[in-house]
Amino acid sequence: MIERDFAVGGVPGVLWSPAAGAGRAPLVLVGHGGGMHKKAPAVSGRAQRIVAGCGFHVAAIDAPGHGGRPRTAHDEREIAELYRARAAGEPEGPIVVRYNAHLAERAVPEWRATLDALRTLPEIGDRGPVGYLGLNMGTAIGVPLVADDPRIDAAVFGLHWPDALAEAARRITVPVEFDLQWDDEHIPRAAGLALFDAFASREKSLHANAGRHKELPRFEADSAVRFFARHLGAKAAPDA
Amino acid sequence: MIERDFAVGGVPGVLWSPAAGAGRAPLVLVGHGGGMHKKAPAVSGRAQRIVAGCGFHVAAIDAPGHGGRPRTAHDEREIAELYRARAAGEPEGPIVVRYNAHLAERAVPEWRATLDALRTLPEIGDRGPVGYLGLNMGTAIGVPLVADDPRIDAAVFGLHWPDALAEAARRITVPVEFDLQWDDEHIPRAAGLALFDAFASREKSLHANAGRHKELPRFEADSAVRFFARHLGAKAAPDA
Repeated sequence: MIERDFAVGGVPGVLWSPAAGAGRAPLVLVGHGGGMHKKAPAVSGRAQRIVAGCGFHVAAIDAPGHGGRPRTAHDEREIAELYRARAAGEPEGPIVVRYNAHLAERAVPEWRATLDALRTLPEIGDRGPVGYLGLNMGTAIGVPLVADDPRIDAAVFGLHWPDALAEAARRITVPVEFDLQWDDEHIPRAAGLALFDAFASREKSLHANAGRHKELPRFEADSAVRFFARHLGAKAAPDA
Repeated sequence: MIERDFAVGGVPGVLWSPAAGAGRAPLVLVGHGGGMHKKAPAVSGRAQRIVAGCGFHVAAIDAPGHGGRPRTAHDEREIAELYRARAAGEPEGPIVVRYNAHLAERAVPEWRATLDALRTLPEIGDRGPVGYLGLNMGTAIGVPLVADDPRIDAAVFGLHWPDALAEAARRITVPVEFDLQWDDEHIPRAAGLALFDAFASREKSLHANAGRHKELPRFEADSAVRFFARHLGAKAAPDA
């Protein structure tokens, strides 16, 4: 796997690609979770599986205020408020929902500019299939991104509240795989199901697993690889 | 794939096995749907995938009143009532639930006797891993079977109402994969979710797909194969 760092409009990113000589291949954008960064193990591990399993490219960028990027005063206030709520044993949902919505407003244009740039690379190309994968904050950013960007052909989402996302989800028609934890201590079951229900996609699959918020089974990472192989691989084949 | 017909206590069955020379291997029992039989394409197709994909054995038997087996007067009355309800546009749930519960009472002892017999075969053995797969009526029969028979280590269920099954499901602790159709015109969404919720299994996965009752995506058949490979294959390995 080849790893290349890049920056688009000051936003740092990384592109992982198959080792050698592969022709044009689909691209999967991976949005990291809150408090993580573009090369966190959860991201690079997913990238490894997608590159090795499908021969696709995978790109990740740091979200605003994450990784090497500076935090604004607003970021600092919201993060402090989140820590305060956690320490006080209060529900974190209301804070996470509103702060992730704020971050999504900043992140969606950054993802679109990143995609513009990546599609100028000959090994990706300006008409190839594109997927998006992101859970938690990666879903908060990904749902408005996929709703607004017709270049994205399939998406894996999950582990988020519907409050700020259902409207955008109702505009998404591409295939979706959605992960939900059946015993999530933060996201009420009905809230997770409501977000899955909101997608307008003709093909959408809910994978709900027993367990708490952070106990998503590892086999769901493999399921996401097969999902992208099915949707992006099939679309890529005629041009291969 | 080798196909062998058998009968246990007058109940006709079929055993599919890997072609040649394989040692002892796990067994998956497949329960067919209502109106089907042990060699219906949905059953033999599943068997083919499990035998080819895992090298396991697969057994199916005709349910009471199905395939080559005679119908009782009770069977005839219930089937006539089901057709009448369908023709009248009435919900079929109440009839299917009660008739399947009746069939399960007859079928569970038949499955247990079949399993007794199959485990005397050297290529299966009396201590090897066993799985159960059945949707629709196959779930109505399989849930009480798996609840009562400690020899079954993992199960794939789905597409059924909880009414007659939730009590037995609450006694099931082995890993479960559960298929549900998000837009099922017969089984209300909340009813399907309630049955999934009832399983006491620490590892259970709900696969809910957009679409109507009969539109279960084909990739769920492959998912079931991987589920059995994960659970039965791992358990079989130390003895291999």
